Amino acid sequence: MPKRNAFYAQSGGVTAVINVTACAVIETARRHRDRIGKVFAGRNGIIGALTEDLIDTSKESSRAIAGLMHTPAGAFGSCRYQLAEFDRDRTQYERLIEVFRAHDIGYFFYNGGNDSADTCLKVSRISARLGYPISAVHIPKTVDNDLPITDCCPGFGSVAKYVATSMREAAFDVASMAKTSTKIFVLEVMGRHAGWITAAVGLADDKDTPIPLVLLFPEIRFDEAKFLAQVDAGVKKFGYCCVGVSEGLLNAAGGLMAEAGTKDAFGHAQLGGVGPLIASLVKAKLGYKYHWAVADYLQRAARHLASKTDVLQSYAVGKAAVELALKGENAVMPAILRTSDKPYRWKIGVAPLDKIANVEKKLPRDFISADGYGITAKARAYLEPLVRGEDYPPFKGGLPQYVRLKNVAVPRKLAAAFKV
Amino acid sequence: MPKRNAFYAQSGGVTAVINVTACAVIETARRHRDRIGKVFAGRNGIIGALTEDLIDTSKESSRAIAGLMHTPAGAFGSCRYQLAEFDRDRTQYERLIEVFRAHDIGYFFYNGGNDSADTCLKVSRISARLGYPISAVHIPKTVDNDLPITDCCPGFGSVAKYVATSMREAAFDVASMAKTSTKIFVLEVMGRHAGWITAAVGLADDKDTPIPLVLLFPEIRFDEAKFLAQVDAGVKKFGYCCVGVSEGLLNAAGGLMAEAGTKDAFGHAQLGGVGPLIASLVKAKLGYKYHWAVADYLQRAARHLASKTDVLQSYAVGKAAVELALKGENAVMPAILRTSDKPYRWKIGVAPLDKIANVEKKLPRDFISADGYGITAKARAYLEPLVRGEDYPPFKGGLPQYVRLKNVAVPRKLAAAFKV
Repeated sequence: MPKRNAFYAQSGGVTAVINVTACAVIETARRHRDRIGKVFAGRNGIIGALTEDLIDTSKESSRAIAGLMHTPAGAFGSCRYQLAEFDRDRTQYERLIEVFRAHDIGYFFYNGGNDSADTCLKVSRISARLGYPISAVHIPKTVDNDLPITDCCPGFGSVAKYVATSMREAAFDVASMAKTSTKIFVLEVMGRHAGWITAAVGLADDKDTPIPLVLLFPEIRFDEAKFLAQVDAGVKKFGYCCVGVSEGLLNAAGGLMAEAGTKDAFGHAQLGGVGPLIASLVKAKLGYKYHWAVADYLQRAARHLASKTDVLQSYAVGKAAVELALKGENAVMPAILRTSDKPYRWKIGVAPLDKIANVEKKLPRDFISADGYGITAKARAYLEPLVRGEDYPPFKGGLPQYVRLKNVAVPRKLAAAFKV
Repeated sequence: MPKRNAFYAQSGGVTAVINVTACAVIETARRHRDRIGKVFAGRNGIIGALTEDLIDTSKESSRAIAGLMHTPAGAFGSCRYQLAEFDRDRTQYERLIEVFRAHDIGYFFYNGGNDSADTCLKVSRISARLGYPISAVHIPKTVDNDLPITDCCPGFGSVAKYVATSMREAAFDVASMAKTSTKIFVLEVMGRHAGWITAAVGLADDKDTPIPLVLLFPEIRFDEAKFLAQVDAGVKKFGYCCVGVSEGLLNAAGGLMAEAGTKDAFGHAQLGGVGPLIASLVKAKLGYKYHWAVADYLQRAARHLASKTDVLQSYAVGKAAVELALKGENAVMPAILRTSDKPYRWKIGVAPLDKIANVEKKLPRDFISADGYGITAKARAYLEPLVRGEDYPPFKGGLPQYVRLKNVAVPRKLAAAFKV
């Protein structure tokens, strides 16, 4: 087999551990120098390929690449950009082939979620449709944990650990204040369409550390009266109550609660999120003093509190992707397969990409308690192994030391620019 | 000297390390069993003393007390409650003496901020005014870092570490997304009257890790045009910009920005905080896509990311408080005195409480850069040692294991109840 170069890019919302996967791809490729020349990273995802804006990762030392293991977010830049349908506009695909050919790229690794899997699938079809030989492998990454087939998605375990830890810490705080001050604490979390992150908040409460906790899942339509009764019962019994709410909570009519009429000082809708809205509702109807937090990017960037399991799996999928490509596979994704709950065991399998792209895995109903406000034992058995283990970054002068690569551009070979 | 019991209580907003001080008070008292009988903790601060709701800490094992070292928030409950002026209403003071006498309490330790120092000062005057012998020692604690005389306040260093780390992590995230998506990230932090926490956000940006960062201090009135120009310059130069804003930011007229006309779906003012307001302003005026986070209680409860320096100082002030009381001191507070910046060295001194109570130490103007949007080298030299060192709690199954004490009530000896 001739030696060819590889393209790797990061796509969609970044995570605390997507760079761990980048590290795995580059390190594994470097161990196969007989088959893989250089790894070119796309600057800002697929846009880097379209605009021939490639980064030469061979310019980075082993030490710098190893630093990606503990550095959050996307070291090469990410993007939110979808390719057009092949039959509607083939110019993008022709351009990709031009760029791939100019740089002798034979391996395409795309690291992302549902939308990105769709992009990778489209690229994988270049082989058959336009006769350019390429192995396109999608590598899973999404804090939303909503990819099918794979048992979990790299990035999710660390967010889960962050939100559960944060809720537990805040619960201790509000419990201390409840006698004369704050009685309600609301934490808004990510996961617009699927309640995996909301479910993870539920881990804050366990038998060693019981916490009155009400969860509002995007899968369960909001019922104001029932919710208020639930919160009131918590306060009556424990003196305080905590609420974990998904940013994607829907009202009875199926509309986003976050868009329910909030206006800012400039007259724009949706200034606050659903977290402050829920807090304000409790105050208006039950009279309890509240605090609320919206963790937003903090939750998915918190490399300082990453899950060790997540780090190991993020590395494993990157390594497996390169190995799959070397076997000549195309249009596939390495998937995490759980082989045992207790003890937790997993291995890497292979999923066909056409079963992944644009499919969303919602939280199963039997992960949510019958009343709709908590998680079941089944959910705990699923979630607990994913947050296990700590993997602290190095600190210097009290702050985590994250690496920034040099990101040296590969000299352009094509005369024409391409407008994205 | 006769052996007498001690009273310890936690007051005001709790912190990630106030229980470290509780541990120090109890452990130090236990090492002086010849002089100090039992340590009774007030359930919910001074309210526990007034209502004779005391907790017998002697019922807790050494191991449980040691667990306070890594447990955030107030293990005995806190309160927001100020005693009346002595001359206006002496019934509260007479009640305190009744309770102290009934339980043979000769040492009073109050662990809090400015308001709590006032309470402790009032209690200290019982000796002279009502003839009841007591040593009242205030122990500093406030994330706001606004107590005078002491170089810093226990609790602040850990919040500082949390907000600087969080901003750095989020900055890496937004930098990854900026090409096609989010260009502005706003983090709202605590510190309503003094900008110490806002200044700490500035540590996220340093020479190893430059970040375009605009800080909005409560000490500097908001100037919309100037602020927008600053943010726009960041985006033009780096492709993105981060903003750290104090919850107490004031508009040109001196009013709280957070109250500037925001209404929720139920018509109540101030649904969101100033963070979302600033983000929304940038979008409206400059058109950049934004994300915002409000860390709220997460920042002050984040024991998982406590500063080791803060932990050591929190212990030192608790130990010193007991030693001061044993020397017969009254109306004093152990203070942290910085003796050297490089290397950072500190020792414990003594401050008279009447110089502490109700005095607020603002961020000095020379800690803020000339343009009003950043921190100076002087601020860095002050802040950096305070966030230094990590002190992770134990984890079990992926989550921090925080202790809950038994909090066994001391049998009541007084017939009369007292209404607070």
